[in-house]
Amino acid sequence: MTVQLEAFRKGLFDSGLLIPMGVDGLYGRSETFESIGTAFDALVSRTGAADKAEVLRFPPALSKQVFETTGYMASFPQLAGTIHSFAGNDKAHAALMRTIEAKEDWTTTQKATQVVAVPAACYPLYGPLGARGPLKPEGALFDVFSWCFRHEPSLEPTRMQFFRMREFVRAGSPEQVQQFREAWVERGKKMMESLQLPLNVDVANDPFFGRAGRMLVTNQREQALKFELLVPVIEGTSPTACLSFNYHQDKFGLSFKIRKSDGETAHTACVGFGIERVILALLATHGYDPQKWPDRVRSALWP
Amino acid sequence: MTVQLEAFRKGLFDSGLLIPMGVDGLYGRSETFESIGTAFDALVSRTGAADKAEVLRFPPALSKQVFETTGYMASFPQLAGTIHSFAGNDKAHAALMRTIEAKEDWTTTQKATQVVAVPAACYPLYGPLGARGPLKPEGALFDVFSWCFRHEPSLEPTRMQFFRMREFVRAGSPEQVQQFREAWVERGKKMMESLQLPLNVDVANDPFFGRAGRMLVTNQREQALKFELLVPVIEGTSPTACLSFNYHQDKFGLSFKIRKSDGETAHTACVGFGIERVILALLATHGYDPQKWPDRVRSALWP
Repeated sequence: MTVQLEAFRKGLFDSGLLIPMGVDGLYGRSETFESIGTAFDALVSRTGAADKAEVLRFPPALSKQVFETTGYMASFPQLAGTIHSFAGNDKAHAALMRTIEAKEDWTTTQKATQVVAVPAACYPLYGPLGARGPLKPEGALFDVFSWCFRHEPSLEPTRMQFFRMREFVRAGSPEQVQQFREAWVERGKKMMESLQLPLNVDVANDPFFGRAGRMLVTNQREQALKFELLVPVIEGTSPTACLSFNYHQDKFGLSFKIRKSDGETAHTACVGFGIERVILALLATHGYDPQKWPDRVRSALWP
Repeated sequence: MTVQLEAFRKGLFDSGLLIPMGVDGLYGRSETFESIGTAFDALVSRTGAADKAEVLRFPPALSKQVFETTGYMASFPQLAGTIHSFAGNDKAHAALMRTIEAKEDWTTTQKATQVVAVPAACYPLYGPLGARGPLKPEGALFDVFSWCFRHEPSLEPTRMQFFRMREFVRAGSPEQVQQFREAWVERGKKMMESLQLPLNVDVANDPFFGRAGRMLVTNQREQALKFELLVPVIEGTSPTACLSFNYHQDKFGLSFKIRKSDGETAHTACVGFGIERVILALLATHGYDPQKWPDRVRSALWP
């Protein structure tokens, strides 16, 4: 069951679940909204508990040099967010303040700092992982969670500029990481079915930038590098990718020198859970009051 | 008991509590580090529970227009972080990629987006609060929590570029908000004493920018607008401000049209809890293994 975009926005704002912040894609969250996210995050933890992933948490930014190494600017320059600061003296500050007071553009003199907003929760992991030295024969498994930034202002609440992503990340041999990903496609489906969400898993393609990006899209689809678990949320738009299952092959292994125990370059894969998107899919499907959601959905979230 | 800076960094990195990310002031966190923060955050919740604050959560950015309204660029331009993106076409992207590959500065063509990193957890609150219309006669109380950005690269782990801040924010009459602040100075002291941290509360001054900033410092001290709860952490440096108690007078009330029930401009105050700084103060004081901390500290954190 999908909702009409304007009705969805009005429902979320009127109920206070989301709070407008004056720019599309940034919203405050009510306690109820957060409680759904906390419960879903805990459901993800329970679903993956047996694997005993190493828990690591990173801030919502990474170093510019590490960011360059990820290759993100080649694929998604339009989505990335570099963080800039004022670097002038007293005189420059006086000029800056005059520009602000005149309501003119004061951002042109800002200088890039050494930090860039995190575009995906797993990005800060690969540098430290490579720095640890070779993996054990069984590979490695991590549990990460981060606020992520993507510059794509949109009226759709399912497409925020800052949102939270939980991920499990596997590193090891191609077989190890592909097995991890396949297992999570099945787990993810069962988990989301327990929330009584209509869903579909499909091969996906990322919004690679420009003409050169079209080849990357074709490659990604043909090699089935990315699957998404899709839930219809907003009427007349594509269904919303709530979970994604990504096989990076040796991309991050090569860039960050992540090696298997035998010294060969490791492969990596990750499963990502879009916290806000799942909350919004639940609200669209079951209504704005979690107290009135079906008993089985409630007990899956709050056992 | 303070620790020497280099020994502290080595202790935190060797134990894996913090993970270097290639730039000063950005670090990954281990599960143990996070568990201390979660426990402290819950202690703050218990300490303030009786007040029944309204819980709101905001992403780590706010709109540029709201940011301008806060006046932050007048006081702390050197700390603020504007978020910039690539806004060009295929040809510009090709040029950008050549610049990156040549290891030259590729950030000069980035354009400011409509969002700015949050400098303090309460900043995103005031816009929506003003938009709600006049306060009730008893005023209002909020519970916020956010990742915050400040551009101040430092070797001191207690001075991160991205860190988490929990806050309670009170809006109402001058008497209401000053009473709130005074009550929290006492509560904060008791709460931190229960963690057996050596502490001191003192009038504080913010790092206002430049020559004009010196007047602001004097004003802030003379009017006692800011108190800090300080814990000695790093040898040979000033003690670390772990909590702060701020009286904004009518600054945010005027800027964001926050009004009392009688139509007059509301005053605001906040108490802020620096999550990472408290964790680091505990580690410096009681050692790197929370399992070996004094029983009374452990039972205050994990009752």
